[in-house]
Amino acid sequence: MSGADGVLLPPEDFVARLRDEGVRRYHDQHPFHQRMHAGTLTRAELQAWTLNRYYYQTRIPIKDAIIVSKSEDPAFRRAWIRRIHDHDGEGPETGGLELWLRLAAAVGLDRDEVASCRRVLPGVRFACDSYVTLCRESPLVVAVASSLTEMFAPDLMSKRIAAWEQHYPWVGAAALGYFRARVPRARRDGDEGLAFVVGEATSRALQEACVAALVRKTEILWHLVDCVQLATAGAARAGAPA
Amino acid sequence: MSGADGVLLPPEDFVARLRDEGVRRYHDQHPFHQRMHAGTLTRAELQAWTLNRYYYQTRIPIKDAIIVSKSEDPAFRRAWIRRIHDHDGEGPETGGLELWLRLAAAVGLDRDEVASCRRVLPGVRFACDSYVTLCRESPLVVAVASSLTEMFAPDLMSKRIAAWEQHYPWVGAAALGYFRARVPRARRDGDEGLAFVVGEATSRALQEACVAALVRKTEILWHLVDCVQLATAGAARAGAPA
Repeated sequence: MSGADGVLLPPEDFVARLRDEGVRRYHDQHPFHQRMHAGTLTRAELQAWTLNRYYYQTRIPIKDAIIVSKSEDPAFRRAWIRRIHDHDGEGPETGGLELWLRLAAAVGLDRDEVASCRRVLPGVRFACDSYVTLCRESPLVVAVASSLTEMFAPDLMSKRIAAWEQHYPWVGAAALGYFRARVPRARRDGDEGLAFVVGEATSRALQEACVAALVRKTEILWHLVDCVQLATAGAARAGAPA
Repeated sequence: MSGADGVLLPPEDFVARLRDEGVRRYHDQHPFHQRMHAGTLTRAELQAWTLNRYYYQTRIPIKDAIIVSKSEDPAFRRAWIRRIHDHDGEGPETGGLELWLRLAAAVGLDRDEVASCRRVLPGVRFACDSYVTLCRESPLVVAVASSLTEMFAPDLMSKRIAAWEQHYPWVGAAALGYFRARVPRARRDGDEGLAFVVGEATSRALQEACVAALVRKTEILWHLVDCVQLATAGAARAGAPA
């Protein structure tokens, strides 16, 4: 681990480290995502990704509530609760989880089966659960740092919307509401998270722990797509239904 | 432990058990609270109670965020988040914690010192922290059951408002906003919590764990007042400033 000399990085160097370590591991570069954006995924592959990624989505409000529980500051808690509402909605039938289930229906999945998470791949479950554990077992600033993949999400979401509209028109543009909603929200969340991490990581050891948490998070996202890729490739080889 | 035969209690019996075990241990019967309501507490005693109880108040949004993180149901999470807002407020300078700090100033304490929690008694800290731990380490329904002291709060709050206005007029009625706000909120929270616990405690073992959590919670509340009573009695004996 670099930084063993314990000298606090100046804010601009710390931000550059976070961006650099995050960008080069971000799952937009995963071969499966590159095929998604090139328009070469089959319907079964899109379905497998949508079904498995839903489990990740369900972990977000849970890990965010854990983050809220780690703060002693009402203002921080107020701001972070907004993220829970983004996914749970302000009322029934609203919010990111609902939008994701509409996407699932639009790609041809059974909505209730997706919501049940029964068919989630074991490796996907392990990875997503490890995200909750990471947030539970880390100091607040490190848990927040694990959310900083949001910094890279707006570009990916914009690219994804364009690619799906072009290559998978059968899904329907109306079903892409989740991706659309995430563009401004991820930008806001990424900016706020980064400002908090820069302000609160007040030792080199904490800065390094923040970088490590962001790296771990990129591994979680990458592994999810790995698992989906492996499972759908196996199904294709065996000629089994995906 | 009763109920070793494992027969699920009918809802009305379960509710009666919860009410009975809770009511007879509730801290409204603590000698210190009885003196509070009889108007015989000194200014120093009121201050010690207000300062120490603030630490309990600060644990509420934290344990509530933990409860939110334990639920898989967006509707439950949405409803429970309201409790966090009740204490943190919807914006700066609002919410229960702010109202409590105004009460602290009105009884003659330094607001910032109270907010720092520096002078909280060790035993009070242990008891309040154990409430957070109880919620963290319990299944959701048991964590919710520990909140059911809310069922008994409206009566205590109403009695307290009347007693303070009558016996401690120097505090000022405007400073009693926290107690006033709690009357309807505690009634709502108690009713909702009870309905959830009755619905979700689907085995006798879970029912008994819920009763045990409520009993533990009454012990936490009682111990807090014990500590304040002991500390102020000691100060009175020694002639030291409380």
